[in-house]
Amino acid sequence: MSDVLARLGQVLEQRKQVPSESSYVSGLYRAGLDAILKKVGEEATETVLAAKNGVGTEVVREVADLWFHSLVMLSFLDLGPDSVLAELDRRFGQSGLDEKAARKKGHE
Amino acid sequence: MSDVLARLGQVLEQRKQVPSESSYVSGLYRAGLDAILKKVGEEATETVLAAKNGVGTEVVREVADLWFHSLVMLSFLDLGPDSVLAELDRRFGQSGLDEKAARKKGHE
Amino acid sequence: MSDVLARLGQVLEQRKQVPSESSYVSGLYRAGLDAILKKVGEEATETVLAAKNGVGTEVVREVADLWFHSLVMLSFLDLGPDSVLAELDRRFGQSGLDEKAARKKGHE
Amino acid sequence: MSDVLARLGQVLEQRKQVPSESSYVSGLYRAGLDAILKKVGEEATETVLAAKNGVGTEVVREVADLWFHSLVMLSFLDLGPDSVLAELDRRFGQSGLDEKAARKKGHE
Repeated sequence: MSDVLARLGQVLEQRKQVPSESSYVSGLYRAGLDAILKKVGEEATETVLAAKNGVGTEVVREVADLWFHSLVMLSFLDLGPDSVLAELDRRFGQSGLDEKAARKKGHE
Repeated sequence: MSDVLARLGQVLEQRKQVPSESSYVSGLYRAGLDAILKKVGEEATETVLAAKNGVGTEVVREVADLWFHSLVMLSFLDLGPDSVLAELDRRFGQSGLDEKAARKKGHE
Repeated sequence: MSDVLARLGQVLEQRKQVPSESSYVSGLYRAGLDAILKKVGEEATETVLAAKNGVGTEVVREVADLWFHSLVMLSFLDLGPDSVLAELDRRFGQSGLDEKAARKKGHE
Repeated sequence: MSDVLARLGQVLEQRKQVPSESSYVSGLYRAGLDAILKKVGEEATETVLAAKNGVGTEVVREVADLWFHSLVMLSFLDLGPDSVLAELDRRFGQSGLDEKAARKKGHE
C-alpha cells in the first residue's frame, strides 16, 4: 500500500495523455492550473476545519483530498510524487531523526 | 523510498513520546493544534505561490513542507499516514482508474 | 460610499432575522459556520491567484468577495464590521502612522 | 470611523513613497508580492481558527489583520480600498438587498 502515491502518480499521468470526457481529473486538467490550485487551497481549509472538529475519519478524508489534489498539481506541472518523497527522504532519511534540513528551511 | 511517509510517521510518533528541547517538531507539539494548523495553511499558500512562479524545485519543496506538516497534524491527533494512504487506495485502488469515490465526495 | 461596510453589516443582520429561501446569504447561514469559513478560505486563495495573475479588476473582485464573506462570518457570530474598523482605528488611528500595535501583534 | 479604510489606504500609499527602515509595512513592500500574499493566506487561516475557537475579540483581531494585509496588497498593486468598497456598493447598493451580482459571480 505504501506505493499508492506512485501508482496514483502514474494514473494521473495517463489521464493527462488520454483525457476522458467524464473524468473529474480530466476536467481539472482542462480547467487549468488556477482551478487546480483553488482545490489545493480549499482542501487545506477543509483539513483545518476537520482537525478543529476533531473527527478522525473526516480528518483522514480531507488530508486524502489535500494530497490527491497536490498530486494532480504536480502532474499538471510535469512533476510527480517521487520528487516530493525524495525531498522528504533527503531531509529525514539518514537517522530518521535529522530535522536539520527542515529547520534550515526555516519554519520561522 | 516509497515508505518514507510510514518512516516519517514513526519518527513523529517517537518525538511525541520523547520530546526534545531543540526539536522543531517537539516545539510544534508543545505549541498545540492551532500552531500546527497554521503551518498547514501557510504551506498550502506557499505551494500555490510556488506553482504560480513555475519553479519545479520550489514546488517540490513546498509540497514536501505541506505533506510534512500534514503528518505532524495527523500524529498530533493520534492518526498516521497509513490511514490516508489506505483512503487513497480505497478510492483509486482496484482499477487504478476508478474515480467514483472521489467524485462522489463531491468536489463541486 | 465609505459606509458601505456598515450598510452591508445591517443587511446581513436582517437576512439573519428574516431568512429567504432564494437568498445566497440565507443559504450560507443555514449551511453553518464551517460552510462560511470554507468560503473565507476559498476567497483568500482566489485573492492570491488574482494578485499573481496581476489583473487589477480581478483582484478587486476577489478582495470584495473575501471581505464580503468575512462580513457574513462576523454576522453569523453576532459581530459586525464596526468592531473590525474600530480595531483598525485603534491600531492606526492617532497619527495614522502608528504601527506599533500591528507590530506588537507580531507578524513574525 | 467608517473612513478608517480610506485613511489606512492613504497611509500605506505614503509608506510606499517614503519607506522607513523600521516600518513593518515598508519591510513587507521590500519583501515583495509573495511575502504580502503569504500574510494574506496566513491571516485567513488564523481567522478560520479564531472563528472555530469562538472567541469574539480574537475573531475581530484576525479579521482586522486579514483586511489590513489585503490593503497592503492592494496598495502594492497600485489599487486602493475605494475600488473594493465601490465593488461592494455596486453589488449591494441599490436596495441593500440585491444579491444578484454576488450570486451571478457564482459562489458555486
